[in-house]
Amino acid sequence: MTTKSESPNPAPLIDRGLDSIFYPQSVAVLGVTPTPGTVPYDIFYNILASGYKGVLYPIAPGKKSISAVPAYRYVSDVEADVDLAVIVFPAVVVDKALEMCGKKGVKAAIVISAGFREVGPKGVKREQRIKDICAEYGIALIGPNCLGVINTDPGCMLNASFARKMPSEDRIAFLSQSGALCTAVLDYARGKNIGFSKFVSFGNMAGITEIDLLYYLHQDPKTDVILLYLEELRNGRALMEAARKITRGPNAKPILVVKSGRTSQGADAASSHTGSLAGEDSICEAVFRDAGIIRVNTLDAMFNAAILLTYQPMPAGNRVAIVTNAGGPGVMATDAAVSWGLEIARFQPQTTSRLQESLPAVANIKNPVDVIGDARSDRYEAALEAVMQDANVDQLLVILTPQSMTDIQEIAQGIVKVQKKALKPMACSFMGASDVQVGIDILEQAHIPHYILPELACKAMANVQRVCKWRQTELEDFEPLPADRTAVAAIIDDLPEGYLAEDQALAVLKAYGLPVPKHKLCKDADQAAAFAQKIGFPVVLRVVSPQIVHKYDVKGVVLNLENAEQLKKAYKDMMDHIAKVLPDAEVTGVLVRGMIPAGHEVILGAKRDAVFGPTLMFGLGGIFVETFKDVTFALAPIDEGIASRMVRQIKAIGLLKGARGAEPADIAAIEQSLRRLGQLISDFERIRELDINPLIVAPAGQGAAVADVRIRLDG
Amino acid sequence: MTTKSESPNPAPLIDRGLDSIFYPQSVAVLGVTPTPGTVPYDIFYNILASGYKGVLYPIAPGKKSISAVPAYRYVSDVEADVDLAVIVFPAVVVDKALEMCGKKGVKAAIVISAGFREVGPKGVKREQRIKDICAEYGIALIGPNCLGVINTDPGCMLNASFARKMPSEDRIAFLSQSGALCTAVLDYARGKNIGFSKFVSFGNMAGITEIDLLYYLHQDPKTDVILLYLEELRNGRALMEAARKITRGPNAKPILVVKSGRTSQGADAASSHTGSLAGEDSICEAVFRDAGIIRVNTLDAMFNAAILLTYQPMPAGNRVAIVTNAGGPGVMATDAAVSWGLEIARFQPQTTSRLQESLPAVANIKNPVDVIGDARSDRYEAALEAVMQDANVDQLLVILTPQSMTDIQEIAQGIVKVQKKALKPMACSFMGASDVQVGIDILEQAHIPHYILPELACKAMANVQRVCKWRQTELEDFEPLPADRTAVAAIIDDLPEGYLAEDQALAVLKAYGLPVPKHKLCKDADQAAAFAQKIGFPVVLRVVSPQIVHKYDVKGVVLNLENAEQLKKAYKDMMDHIAKVLPDAEVTGVLVRGMIPAGHEVILGAKRDAVFGPTLMFGLGGIFVETFKDVTFALAPIDEGIASRMVRQIKAIGLLKGARGAEPADIAAIEQSLRRLGQLISDFERIRELDINPLIVAPAGQGAAVADVRIRLDG
Repeated sequence: MTTKSESPNPAPLIDRGLDSIFYPQSVAVLGVTPTPGTVPYDIFYNILASGYKGVLYPIAPGKKSISAVPAYRYVSDVEADVDLAVIVFPAVVVDKALEMCGKKGVKAAIVISAGFREVGPKGVKREQRIKDICAEYGIALIGPNCLGVINTDPGCMLNASFARKMPSEDRIAFLSQSGALCTAVLDYARGKNIGFSKFVSFGNMAGITEIDLLYYLHQDPKTDVILLYLEELRNGRALMEAARKITRGPNAKPILVVKSGRTSQGADAASSHTGSLAGEDSICEAVFRDAGIIRVNTLDAMFNAAILLTYQPMPAGNRVAIVTNAGGPGVMATDAAVSWGLEIARFQPQTTSRLQESLPAVANIKNPVDVIGDARSDRYEAALEAVMQDANVDQLLVILTPQSMTDIQEIAQGIVKVQKKALKPMACSFMGASDVQVGIDILEQAHIPHYILPELACKAMANVQRVCKWRQTELEDFEPLPADRTAVAAIIDDLPEGYLAEDQALAVLKAYGLPVPKHKLCKDADQAAAFAQKIGFPVVLRVVSPQIVHKYDVKGVVLNLENAEQLKKAYKDMMDHIAKVLPDAEVTGVLVRGMIPAGHEVILGAKRDAVFGPTLMFGLGGIFVETFKDVTFALAPIDEGIASRMVRQIKAIGLLKGARGAEPADIAAIEQSLRRLGQLISDFERIRELDINPLIVAPAGQGAAVADVRIRLDG
Repeated sequence: MTTKSESPNPAPLIDRGLDSIFYPQSVAVLGVTPTPGTVPYDIFYNILASGYKGVLYPIAPGKKSISAVPAYRYVSDVEADVDLAVIVFPAVVVDKALEMCGKKGVKAAIVISAGFREVGPKGVKREQRIKDICAEYGIALIGPNCLGVINTDPGCMLNASFARKMPSEDRIAFLSQSGALCTAVLDYARGKNIGFSKFVSFGNMAGITEIDLLYYLHQDPKTDVILLYLEELRNGRALMEAARKITRGPNAKPILVVKSGRTSQGADAASSHTGSLAGEDSICEAVFRDAGIIRVNTLDAMFNAAILLTYQPMPAGNRVAIVTNAGGPGVMATDAAVSWGLEIARFQPQTTSRLQESLPAVANIKNPVDVIGDARSDRYEAALEAVMQDANVDQLLVILTPQSMTDIQEIAQGIVKVQKKALKPMACSFMGASDVQVGIDILEQAHIPHYILPELACKAMANVQRVCKWRQTELEDFEPLPADRTAVAAIIDDLPEGYLAEDQALAVLKAYGLPVPKHKLCKDADQAAAFAQKIGFPVVLRVVSPQIVHKYDVKGVVLNLENAEQLKKAYKDMMDHIAKVLPDAEVTGVLVRGMIPAGHEVILGAKRDAVFGPTLMFGLGGIFVETFKDVTFALAPIDEGIASRMVRQIKAIGLLKGARGAEPADIAAIEQSLRRLGQLISDFERIRELDINPLIVAPAGQGAAVADVRIRLDG
């Protein structure tokens, strides 16, 4: 089955298929039983009871009707067209059912049944079979092993799931790989008065993937924000491409994700649960970052940010004004805001004057504004009006604690009034529970996001800020750099599995424009001395031998040779030593190259990952990689923006920028090298692993040089 | 007023006073008015309506009765004894009221009224006045500027606060510096069915401090867990001493704190709100850590951990078993548990067999155990029984999502049954809202902590683990190290404000046993050469002059002089250069000392802090301090345990322990030096700042040496 992500143009097949899933004119439920409380019955009944606007056909061999709806033996018995089949038959007969659907011309299917990939090898085979059938007949398939699909659009009203209650209509879509999580999420969201536009449990993704769904929701006029729960990142690059289109531009929609399996123990649990291969989390993290997908760790954080994104305008910047009737919570909110990267707005002088006029002398008129415990709605309103109009304020947080004088209802109404006139986003925290409920109800009705603690509001605001920042990031079209593919192919095509010799590895890098110093593989001391003379002393000697991987261990490297005499002596000593310690090593020769002036040592790595394909790694050399694990990742190839992100995201970036009065390093040269490396590993599938360790980076404008490289080929 | 923390023996005055605050036989409310909805009336009415077991006297000049209770003009008019006065008069007359209380023999007072230290200089004066009166008459004072005090003990039942509703009785005490926060906390806790033993808003702490209250609650048989909200750490060392006694030993009670003003912006907001000087947060953090106080960032985190500590036994270790009916949430819980330092238990073989027998084949019998979406209570119970009996399991997390087959009520009852038989702590997460409420109610009634998301349960478990770990930490009695105080006094007593000369600074360090290399202040080149000959070459020359602080800038340091000839030349060159660049500098002489062999460079700092008094700082030299801010703090003096914590807590500790195959450094020598430095700054109040930068540390067992030091005296 072709997906949008694989073809340059959206595949109309999927589009039609997804329309048939969300907006079918008719639905057949295959495998209905007449017993309430079982999944096969409940699914049927949920469609019937949800107010579905199309026609519903129960397929229940041996039954005349189900809940008074005429039943059919086979889907082929239905005379009219069937757009969508919802299949609840046991796993072993799902293939038969799908085959019949195919023959009938059914456009889409949701397979609820479990017993596929998640149960091991037998299930994998079963899943492949239904995949093949769907491909053959062009059926768009959701599932198997899922809870189903819900569409709250009043024009359709479809609850094709075994979740008991239909959620209310809202502008948030939720997609989940886990079916069991869905019932909890529906109940949780209902408890917070949050509804959904579309709600999809996509299960094993045998047909339609999360990526297809994202493209579809991007075009869905009923959806503003997309939430995604993932346990497995099956196609990182396609997800990245999709998300980059969806999260930017005139029809931009934010995507928030909870990806579980963050820790290796979590990943183990996920793979024993879904039968999926869990990818390295640091690479997932990089994919989400470069895709503009906002990753959060918990469902709260996801919904807390979602309501702010859905109900409020986007803020122009990260400067927050806080208005509170209690100092302590104001301080706690300030701590939270600042520690998550928001700024505490500095008021303009006219705002300060207005606050001074309208608040009592004991009030705090600096941000956070404290209207003091005995404040009533007039004081809140005056303060809110003043700070809302301040050009230095981008967004507002209103905090309330229930004091004896606090007219909670009036204050909430006042907040709604101020918010209606303003174009800036606002969030509230009426702290407590039952005492403040009357106010919370008013705020929620007016779609002003409410959080039980101010810290949660700040976290949500900070996550919205990530969306803003992403939209402002400049993205370039990816353009491959000029490179000599033929030269590389000529070197590696005939080589067996294993490491390249150093001169070969350097030649490969050179063909891709990486900064390789002048060098030559010399067969004897005279040749070496002559070449050194040509490029100029001082030079380095490095032994080349298929048996020697760790050159330093056998004294196979000599640095800083200043003249021919020194070089020749070093050459002889090296050969003598190696002959002694590794008498069987075949020495191909000695690589002679110029000394690279001291500079920052960085590590550039490229690796073909089992889950993600070609990936890139960057870090500062030595203790930074080994002790601090201060490294960054990306999927290869990369554009300028990602190269820049990779370098700047390491914690020790201060060192490259010139900490302690040192000269800043040539960061542009590192970025260039990373891009070229990314292209190299992407172009040649046989390259399994490639490390430049170190690349020595000169001060800004003076480039960098490869000091050592290892390239490993697959067979 | 003497507090326990300042005197070696608990001050009986405070004890008696606090008993009179929490268990008064009689209470007078001074300043009552007859108008409901005002603080003065509400406080009175709350006492009346809370079921208070003592006698209540409204003091309301001009009124015969308040709410039918006979009123008095002055407190002195009450014929019987009055234990506790609750004062709600305006700030300006509080002193008069307290004076009358003093004369009447009132033992304790709660001053609700605001208008003191928090409103600026006038208020500060007013506060000093009431402090003096309380000291004179021996009145234990809570406040001013507070919400009041609540005691839910059925033997007393006192709500001497203006919080509308009395909380239910529970074994958690809550202390808050912020009054406004209290009403929100009461409402919030009620919403979660959490009650309190004692609830105290302690306001400005003019009399009784948080430390007195902690000592009192330590002895309170009704309290198991103490929660504290602080905006200011007024006496870090006394708090540390108190907490170390309270949080350990046979009557150990955990203390959890939210300290706001974590960020510098938050601290600014706190000090404009309370009029307090906010201390450096990194030092607060160190105080809490060394005190065994569990710091959390939000009220949720505080209460989430508190219920686990209060209702469940302490776990024997950090190994968690997870039982769930949904794979996804199991994975999310695993991620959360691991990332907060818990371990996912590995089951014993017999557990695995039991699970295999009692669960269906598709279930996951590894931890997290997935009983699968269609699980009913029998399956949950079987799984819980099995893992609860596993010796590798220290604590349990039960997750439930509401599927169509899920018998929520029965499952909850089953969990209660299993828990009753077990000695291991258990937490639950029934995910959702209204669908799962029936189960949550059953769990809460049985005091099994419930969390709406599994991640929150894991976080709470991790915080409980911090309590366990602290209880297991060995603490030594603090013993001062031998030091020559007289020698130091002789050096610094006559010196003016400012920096010590290098030879003086080294002499000070030497008197306290710090590893100072052999050195001598020499007046000419010959003397220098003679001394160098005596201690052995190579040596270092360092200029000593009151005008030269940065020796390197004027070429005032020469390293690695290998013989007398080199030394004499270097001496002459140095003098010539300084004469040229700083012709007015008086050169006292040149310090000659032996070369210190290369080693790890660390920085030891000591500083007299305006808020905390003497403090210590430790970090690795160079980029680690400047770029990574990788430093640790403590209050001085320190014992062995804290010295060890300070060194081991830096992120780069791997380097000292011997990363990349290097030899491990002499960490014991660093710890010794830190302890001696801590004692030095504690002993001499005139030392404002002292930096050893660097201390050069040799491999383990070979000591360390002070390479450079600066000591600054106050005037």
